[in-house]
Amino acid sequence: VPRTISVALAGCGVVGGELLRLLRENTNSIEAKHGVRFDVTSVLVRCSERTRPVELAPGAIVTDVDSFLGAEADVVVEALGGIEPAGSIARATLARGARFVTANKALIAVHGAELQRLALRHAARLDFEAAVGGGVPIVRVLRESLADTPVRGIRGILNGTSNFILTRMEMGLSFDGALREARERGFAEADPARDLDGRDAADKIAILAWLAYGIDPTVVRARRRGILPDPEHLTADAGALGGRLRLLAECAQTSDGVTACVEPVIFLPNSEFGRTVGVQNRVVIDCGWGEPIGLSGPGAGGGPTASALLADVIRGARQLPDRAGTPVASASDETPHRWSISLDQGVPANLVPAIAARAGVVLEAARDRGSRLHIVTRRVAWRRIDLMVRTLKSRGGRPGVARLELEDSC
Amino acid sequence: VPRTISVALAGCGVVGGELLRLLRENTNSIEAKHGVRFDVTSVLVRCSERTRPVELAPGAIVTDVDSFLGAEADVVVEALGGIEPAGSIARATLARGARFVTANKALIAVHGAELQRLALRHAARLDFEAAVGGGVPIVRVLRESLADTPVRGIRGILNGTSNFILTRMEMGLSFDGALREARERGFAEADPARDLDGRDAADKIAILAWLAYGIDPTVVRARRRGILPDPEHLTADAGALGGRLRLLAECAQTSDGVTACVEPVIFLPNSEFGRTVGVQNRVVIDCGWGEPIGLSGPGAGGGPTASALLADVIRGARQLPDRAGTPVASASDETPHRWSISLDQGVPANLVPAIAARAGVVLEAARDRGSRLHIVTRRVAWRRIDLMVRTLKSRGGRPGVARLELEDSC
Repeated sequence: VPRTISVALAGCGVVGGELLRLLRENTNSIEAKHGVRFDVTSVLVRCSERTRPVELAPGAIVTDVDSFLGAEADVVVEALGGIEPAGSIARATLARGARFVTANKALIAVHGAELQRLALRHAARLDFEAAVGGGVPIVRVLRESLADTPVRGIRGILNGTSNFILTRMEMGLSFDGALREARERGFAEADPARDLDGRDAADKIAILAWLAYGIDPTVVRARRRGILPDPEHLTADAGALGGRLRLLAECAQTSDGVTACVEPVIFLPNSEFGRTVGVQNRVVIDCGWGEPIGLSGPGAGGGPTASALLADVIRGARQLPDRAGTPVASASDETPHRWSISLDQGVPANLVPAIAARAGVVLEAARDRGSRLHIVTRRVAWRRIDLMVRTLKSRGGRPGVARLELEDSC
Repeated sequence: VPRTISVALAGCGVVGGELLRLLRENTNSIEAKHGVRFDVTSVLVRCSERTRPVELAPGAIVTDVDSFLGAEADVVVEALGGIEPAGSIARATLARGARFVTANKALIAVHGAELQRLALRHAARLDFEAAVGGGVPIVRVLRESLADTPVRGIRGILNGTSNFILTRMEMGLSFDGALREARERGFAEADPARDLDGRDAADKIAILAWLAYGIDPTVVRARRRGILPDPEHLTADAGALGGRLRLLAECAQTSDGVTACVEPVIFLPNSEFGRTVGVQNRVVIDCGWGEPIGLSGPGAGGGPTASALLADVIRGARQLPDRAGTPVASASDETPHRWSISLDQGVPANLVPAIAARAGVVLEAARDRGSRLHIVTRRVAWRRIDLMVRTLKSRGGRPGVARLELEDSC
């Protein structure tokens, strides 16, 4: 019999609804992997009349916080946003030794250190992967993977809304047009002021500075300038200098202490930050290793944020997957690719087209590079290339073969 | 009194030695943060006569596996490499319910699933962050952050040695010259065959496929081709097509099962993989979210690998840092930057140089862009720009200010 873990969810908008859907859809695989079942006992909503993405037990939907806090719950998930009632729910949950999982950066930036002390005092647990970076697992990486690695500095694009707007403006849209599109696509809220003036990014960099340096996020005083009031001139200035404007958040350890900053920065188009477009987030962590650690991923959207919440919800119940294992069907890889094949004069060049044709390989281009013939093929599965290469080798050729991915897929 | 956790270390080369140094150097901060002290009870070495980076208790250094296994240890760390005696040490450790931490990809690729079953049976724990990706926390991310997120596919540059050699050859070195340099800089072992023929990358992608899909890594049959036998023609072919050669490892879920592949692939120079140079590793995880998750960082070197081992060693003893908090010295940010300042005609252009000079700002360039004056400054701290901007505003100007980072720093 699997252990049942009761979950209460505060907030059932885009993120909360997606989390319910993930819990429902993965019930069997979660049970198989972790030996647990999640039972959603209570969902706090603003309006009980709206339709929900999944069916809930009658009586599970509540509209007042007291009823919500009265429900049985091993884990309380908060996806409401804002400081209250999220803060009251957090305190009540942690004070009774339960687990509190949140996507709420404002709450953690203001009350994170206090809530963490409360969690430690009551042997409870506070998790907030979804609060920073959307689908980028930056909280886990700083909190665990790098917990005892000295961090020199962190730089990042942490606000998907402003990055979406800036990159749409680079493509010729006006600020108003870009903001309208962001709203239509669910990337900007009705009031995007906290995104555009840098407060959202400042909250997030304060949380990362807390994780990296142990400094209470409320005492992190970031120098902060957003992309307002004049994003059109800022992007035009960046373009005139051959660069791209990004809203950069950073913190660093200096001899005086920890500094933090959010401001518009102009990067080269081909730099890591210049190439970070749309709602993508990117974080770069300098540990003094020569190469920094980079993390990137979708910074907004219900799917990534709900996945981050789910990982935190399952935390503790987790063990490594240990399934019997479907054998790998590597022989059946029929994905077609373009290929580069060059070969020396062991095989006469005029025989190559016929050898290719017999293997089912269509040539796109062939070029004589002095002592070598260099071929590019049309899209074809490895199986056929393998056959062609074997034939070339059996005739004394020594072909060099590489797959071609000259589209900017990744 | 802090809890004492005893550690036994098998292997004291570059990685093992660096781990000893990190444990010694961070004794106080680890105790403050986690309430534990690590006591190194035994170090297994090949030759007891060599000098070690840190002093060890007399009798702690042993040269035979039986003495090593006889030592008390809550955690056994393995940094020997190879299948034996690493496998025997792993089995003995897990069978008595202790924790086994390893950087050994060959061991995990061959015996990982078996060792994980052993760990579950004896309530022991197996961790291997350092086995894949060096300083890139890919194991943790797949094993925990994305444990219940369906993964469509994973692509990565996972072998730092071959990537270093390929990117040095792009800069004009011969293969032999690049390999010599890799050896001199500690990026290639005496026998680099497993790196160059793709076996090292195949081991790593099999481990990642295990974590993503639950398939025993021994049944993952990757189609494998390395950069041998003819890396010089392969890189020349890539260059002739305007691309860059990389050794790509990938696995994906298809309708038939899971496929895996290691082979040379030609990418555009400006693509994420084309821009991955030196011993850097890069992993891209497609979760079907539109934007993939990207992770990058140093793929080789004692520092990153030992840090990954240390994070696994401390695991379990960990809680969030909760220090009193040094106040952030954000006011004292004196880092000099170049700045872009554009302004309308509220302030006459001929007054701007004097206003800049009084604020201590040296202008590098000024350009009249029709209705706007656009200035680029020399390197100067924000404090001075802030003063200049305040003066411009007090005189009716509306300057737009962005920091300039047009060097390819990141």
